[in-house]
This record gives sequence, structure tokens and C-alpha cells, in this order.
Amino acid sequence: MLKNNNHAINKLLKLGNLKLLTDALANLSPFALSNLISSKSFQQQLQLFKALNPTQAAETFDFLPLHIQKQLLQALSKEQAASLLNTLSPDDRTQFLEELPRETIDELVKLLPREEQILTLSLLGYPEGSVGRLMTPDYIAVKLDWTVEKVLEHIRAYGHDSETIDMIYVIDDAGKLLDDIKLKQFLFVDRYTRVQQISDQKFVALMARSSEEAAINLFANYNRLALPVIDTEGILLGIVTIDDILRLSNEEATKDIQKMGGTEELDEPYMQAPFLTLMNKRARWLVILFIGEMLTATVLGYFEDEISQAVVLALFLPLIISSGGNAGSQASTLVVRAMALDEITISDWWRVVKREVLSGLFLGIVLGTIGFMRVSLWSAFSNIYGEHWLLVATTIALSLVGVVMWGTLSGAILPLILKRLGTDPAVSSAPFVATLSDVTGLIIYFLIAMAVLHGTLL
Amino acid sequence: MLKNNNHAINKLLKLGNLKLLTDALANLSPFALSNLISSKSFQQQLQLFKALNPTQAAETFDFLPLHIQKQLLQALSKEQAASLLNTLSPDDRTQFLEELPRETIDELVKLLPREEQILTLSLLGYPEGSVGRLMTPDYIAVKLDWTVEKVLEHIRAYGHDSETIDMIYVIDDAGKLLDDIKLKQFLFVDRYTRVQQISDQKFVALMARSSEEAAINLFANYNRLALPVIDTEGILLGIVTIDDILRLSNEEATKDIQKMGGTEELDEPYMQAPFLTLMNKRARWLVILFIGEMLTATVLGYFEDEISQAVVLALFLPLIISSGGNAGSQASTLVVRAMALDEITISDWWRVVKREVLSGLFLGIVLGTIGFMRVSLWSAFSNIYGEHWLLVATTIALSLVGVVMWGTLSGAILPLILKRLGTDPAVSSAPFVATLSDVTGLIIYFLIAMAVLHGTLL
Repeated sequence: MLKNNNHAINKLLKLGNLKLLTDALANLSPFALSNLISSKSFQQQLQLFKALNPTQAAETFDFLPLHIQKQLLQALSKEQAASLLNTLSPDDRTQFLEELPRETIDELVKLLPREEQILTLSLLGYPEGSVGRLMTPDYIAVKLDWTVEKVLEHIRAYGHDSETIDMIYVIDDAGKLLDDIKLKQFLFVDRYTRVQQISDQKFVALMARSSEEAAINLFANYNRLALPVIDTEGILLGIVTIDDILRLSNEEATKDIQKMGGTEELDEPYMQAPFLTLMNKRARWLVILFIGEMLTATVLGYFEDEISQAVVLALFLPLIISSGGNAGSQASTLVVRAMALDEITISDWWRVVKREVLSGLFLGIVLGTIGFMRVSLWSAFSNIYGEHWLLVATTIALSLVGVVMWGTLSGAILPLILKRLGTDPAVSSAPFVATLSDVTGLIIYFLIAMAVLHGTLL
Repeated sequence: MLKNNNHAINKLLKLGNLKLLTDALANLSPFALSNLISSKSFQQQLQLFKALNPTQAAETFDFLPLHIQKQLLQALSKEQAASLLNTLSPDDRTQFLEELPRETIDELVKLLPREEQILTLSLLGYPEGSVGRLMTPDYIAVKLDWTVEKVLEHIRAYGHDSETIDMIYVIDDAGKLLDDIKLKQFLFVDRYTRVQQISDQKFVALMARSSEEAAINLFANYNRLALPVIDTEGILLGIVTIDDILRLSNEEATKDIQKMGGTEELDEPYMQAPFLTLMNKRARWLVILFIGEMLTATVLGYFEDEISQAVVLALFLPLIISSGGNAGSQASTLVVRAMALDEITISDWWRVVKREVLSGLFLGIVLGTIGFMRVSLWSAFSNIYGEHWLLVATTIALSLVGVVMWGTLSGAILPLILKRLGTDPAVSSAPFVATLSDVTGLIIYFLIAMAVLHGTLL
């Protein structure tokens, strides 16, 4: 559909005929429109957006990437911007506003109708990353003594705005949540039945000040399309719908993956991120890692004499330290993901340590054995490792056990320490762990070499 | 709730009184029950599971980790196993069965009622990882000429089983999907209104043979709680609900993250994976990487003379090659995730190459400059790098530019090549890219060193 239209739309953009453009766009879905707009230059984006009818504009705006949303909002008149914001659902509006600087938020919120102003500010009052920010107050609440007929009437009167009416919430006079009941249950009973007759007074709810991660995990565990949000008193404040959770869960995974790959999280899609932004986010970590890795040159400086006496040690340098790094990457990846999924908490640290010390020992012995065989085998056919090849092979094998154990342990424990310090555990990326274990790996390697080769090569 | 009960439940388990146990468990949610069961020994798991009433058993079974599901099913009688399977919703049943060996599937399916047998086999007929496997046929379909009254009657009669009735699907006599309409729209109109009057005949649908990833991306883009699934003729086959998509999307992200950390994907939570399974999955990749990394020892063997003539070169080995690895990890992480989110396809390869060559050059110059300054600065205060420190600094700087550029480019292009070959791009993990760029990085480093230092140190 889009491809056939694309040519026509390009022509209309050049002609600048707003009326014809509006007609051409009228049949496209908000998602198709957002793709179309994203693919154009900024001038054309503005032209296209202005050609949309108000409903389309609001729905499409919701789908656009944040950086285009920002540009558009700045280019539109204040009144247009405010009316656009007003048509967004409260939860989407909060998520858009929270990305803007404080002054811009204040300016925009002032232009909203009084009622929406209060609502928006109350949602923005919850801490960033909390369930409160994801809430929408557009839900249906009923009382225990209502009849099914009254409930259905209430839905007809107030259900237009509600995001999902799959679930109806039961509250008492103080607004305290008592139950959640599936809409379809009301369709299966007589219209004079009272709510209390079908209520089991059991429900699952989110706390407004819980973290987004807690919400994601709760949704992943319960097969619910929406969950109610309550405060510490049990008062129903709003609902969170699963579509926002899916989007969030994807974003969280992307951020974690990017951090674990040793780069700062991107706010835009890779291809759309401006080159300098991309370089800034990547160069920062690369430089930090580079400066950390410089310690290897310093450490090796201390062992310069040993290297010149036994050049053979230099040949295995990359092999030894990279094995520690790889083992550490594995461990940290497993632990970081398990923490993100709430499978491990800080209090499990001792179980993690036991598990990873054992893992490191096992994996170190596997690699050490292969390394030992490699040196022995090569020595059988050439003189590359000299007459003391057996000692060299022993050095390599022992170093591998030590380096892999140390890499594994530090890779596993680092995310737990970072979490304890209040930092995101995902920062302990593969490159970060590798850099750490490179420096320590060298020291382990040369100390073992000096002990084993003392009196022969050294 | 769980904590207070835990002590009492342990006592009842020891007593072995099934009746009292059933009563004690009656008030727990399926999720709480699954947590309780997961934390016990296998004998206790079985005891607890047998104490559940049939509805609870079915709901709880759905929440249990796969390895416990398998163990339980084997321990139960065939009839019990079949009745358990029969109470699972068709989509959950497919997802459970597809993890079992073919013979077990056939055996279990035979025990289901005839109707469920046909259904189960037809869902299992779709390829693994396809939308067909996620489908449930429990949806509500109506015709264009029906009145709203008839629709609501139909829902009362057939809606009990349907997973979600937030959406009602409109089909023609051949079963072709014509529209999807929100249930609430029926509540807002007069009961003599016909379906065609509120139908806009626009809908979004999934194809049964599309990939799970396509489904995840469609759900992430459209705010829908369920999407209809059609075949190539447009016939409505079933629906996919967003709660399954959320679970799947979390699982996909976990698998990608684990692969990118250089380990095979775990099928169980990290803490619950048996030690030997965990070792098997980790050792395999670690050994592959180790064998690959052995090439560094071979390559360095060729440059042994150069190293013994200029030991200073060995001091910077780890710094140079790790910079290539880190730059490569960043690039591959960004590209792999962008591909998983459908932001990049194989056809974009040229744009990716252009972007990453430029990125590599930029990042290489940044690190090269820092490296140059490091050597110059140290040489100002000590004699560690000898009289030719300027040439050494030049070698380091040029090598860094070359190695970082190469690492970045290969990190970015490798996932695209893997995808082209039909492999999962997430296999190009940080450790994999680092190993690749270590070997090539050494060659780049020594070739540059031989060119720059020729006639002085070498």
C-alpha cells in the first residue's frame, strides 16, 4: 500500500497542495504514516504532519520516534502543540513529556485545559522509572452494591476514554481497590445480579512507587492485559496496560544489550542516531576502557626483563588474557540478565560466588588442558618453545586455570557490587570485564611464570 | 502471605496429609503456587502438585519452569497428564509440547479428546518459531449482517473459552477476515444496529507462517492486546494475545543477551540450571574461542625475532588488540540489536559499512592520539621506551587507527554475514568479535611496526 502511494505523495509534497495531500494520507494507518514521516526530510515531515486531520495527527504523533516528536513540537505553534498533547492519552503524554527539559514541560503543561494540567502534573510527580509514570487514569471503577445493569450503563457513559475495558475494577467509597473482574463475566450473568455476587475479592496490583522493572516482571508472570495501580493505602490510582509494558520491556532489553556491548545506551534507532551523538556515546566508553587497558602496558613494563629473557612468554600473552576476558564476559552476562529478570538478588551473592568459583575452576581446567596439549604437541614437531617446553606448558596450563577462575569470579561478582553501589549492573559489560581481567590476568601469568620457570628460563 | 504459610506447608508435607494440604493451598494464586513448588525438592513438588484441585493444577502448571513441567508430567499417570494438557489453553499447550521429543508428543496427543487432538496437531503443524505456534482458536467471530443483539448473545454463548474478548472479529461466509471491532463499540450502540454499520473494514493481521520476531515487532508498533492470524487466502485461523508476546519478547531478549555474552542460550533460569548443563553451554563456546585465539600464539611465533629485538612492542600488545576488540564489540552489539528490532536489514549493508568505516576512523584517531600522548609523556620522564620513542609512539598511534577501524568494520559486518548465511546474528558476540580482531590486530600491529621501525629498532 505504502509503496504505491509513495510516488504520488512525493509529487504532492512538491506541489505543496495541502488539500490533495490530506486526501492521499486519509487512508493510511498511524503506523504507516509514522514510517512515511520518519523517512522524509524535516521540511517534508512538517508538511506531511500539517496535512493530517486532527485524529490522525494525534495517533501518528504517538508512533513517531522521540527526536522527530521534539522537532515537530518546536515547529508547531504553541496552541497546536498543546492540542496535540491534549489528545494523547495521559500515560503516553507523561512518557513524552518526561524526555523534555523542565522549562519546556512547564510551558506546554500551562497550555493544557485545567483538568488535564492537574492530571499531567500528578503523573509527572511520580519518580522517573516508577509505575506511577506509566499509569493512565482512564479505567472503569464500580461499587460492590451496583447491579450488572448499572455497571453496563456506567460503561456506556464513561467507557469511551478508557484504554481497555477488558477489566472492571471494584472500589469502596474511599476509593480503595477491592477486586478486578473481567468484563465478560458481566455479560454472562443476569442484569439484576449485584457486583458482590460475582466478586471474589482477590486481585493483583502494582504499587505506584514500584519500579518499571517490577511492573514488567509482574506482567510477565501473570497473564493480564492491564494491572491496577494502588498507593500504600490501597487506593486505586490508575491502571497500567500491557502494550506500554511490551514497549518498555523492549526498550529496557535494548538499553541493557547496548550497555553490555560496552557503549552508552542510544535514545534513537541506530540508523537514525546522528553521527556525532553515536560517536560521543561510543568514544566515551572506549576511552575509559583504553585508559584502563593502559595499565597492561605499565604492568608489562615491570616484567620487561622477564620478557626479553623468555620471549616465549610474550607469544602466549593474548591467549591467556583473552581467555580470562571471555570467561568473565560469560559470567557477567548470565548474572546481569538473571538480575534483570529478578532471578538473582544481591542477597544471593554467596550462592553466586560458590557457583562461579566452581565454574571457573572447571572451565579453567578444560582450557588449561587444551593449552598444555597445544604446547606439548607443537614441541614434539618443532623446537619453537625450546628445551624447557614442559615447564612452558605447565606455566600456560596453570596460568589458564588461575586467569579463568579469576575472570569468572570477577565477572559474576562485579554486577552484584555495581547494584549494591546503586549503579546499573549492565554497565559491567563484556569489554569492561575483559579490561579488568586483562590487567590482573597479566600479573597472575607472570607470577606463575616466575615461580615455574625460576632457574631455567628466568 | 507465602512466607507465613511456608512453615505450615512444610509441616503438612512431612505429615503427608493430602486433605489438609489441599485446604492450605486453596487460597494461593497460581503464581505463588508455582514459586512455592519451584523452591522444593522433586518429591515435594509432586506431593504439592497432586494436592492441588484440578483448576489450580492446570493454572499453576502453566506458570512452572519447563524442566519442572517435564518432570511432573513424567511422574503423573498418562491420564492425569492428558487431562492436564487438555485444560491448558491451545496456545500454551503448543508451546509446552514443542519442547518435548517427537515420541512423547505423539503419545500425549493420543490421550486428548478427538477434537483437541486435531486442533493440537494443526497448531504443531506450523514451523517452530512461527506465528502459527502462538495461535489460539478461542476468539469470537461474527458476520457483517448480524445485529448487535445477536453479537452479544453469541458472546454469552461462546465467549467463556475465549482468551480475550476485547476484540470481536468480523468474517464472511468463507471465513475470510473482514474487520476487527472493539467489544466496547458494541456497548455504545443500539442493539438493533448491524455489524456492518460500525465496521470500517480496516484491520491489522499476522500471517500464520510469519516469524515470532515479526509478531513481536507488530505488537510493539500497534497498541493492540490481540492480533488476528490469517493464512495467505485471508482466512481467519486464530488470534495471538499480547501476554504471550511479552513472555516471548523477554525470552528472545534473554537468548540474544546470552549469545552476545559468548555463551549458548540457557533454557532455564541461571540459578536453576544444573551445573553440568551450565558448564556444557559455557565450555563449548569458550573452547571454540580458545582454539581461535590460539592463532595469536601462531601469528606471534612468526614475529618472535621482532619481539626479541624490540621488547617494547610486547608491552603494548594487550592495549592494541583489546582496543580493536572493544571497538568491534560495540559495533556488533549495535548492529545485532538493530537487526533484532528490524531497524536494519541485510539490504542496508552498504549504509552500515559506510557508517562504520567512518566511525572506526573517528574512534581510531581518538584512541591513537591518546596512545601517542601516553608514549610521549612517559618518555619525557623516563627512558623506558628508548631513544626511538617517537617512532614507537608513531607505531602505536598508527596501529590503533588500523586496528580500531578493522575491529569496528568486522564487528558491524559480521552479524550481517551471519544473517545472510541463515545463522543467528547474535552469535557474533563480543568475545567472538574480540577473538577475530585479536588475530588480525596482531598482524596489523607488526606490519606497521616493521614499516615504521625498519632500520632503527628492527
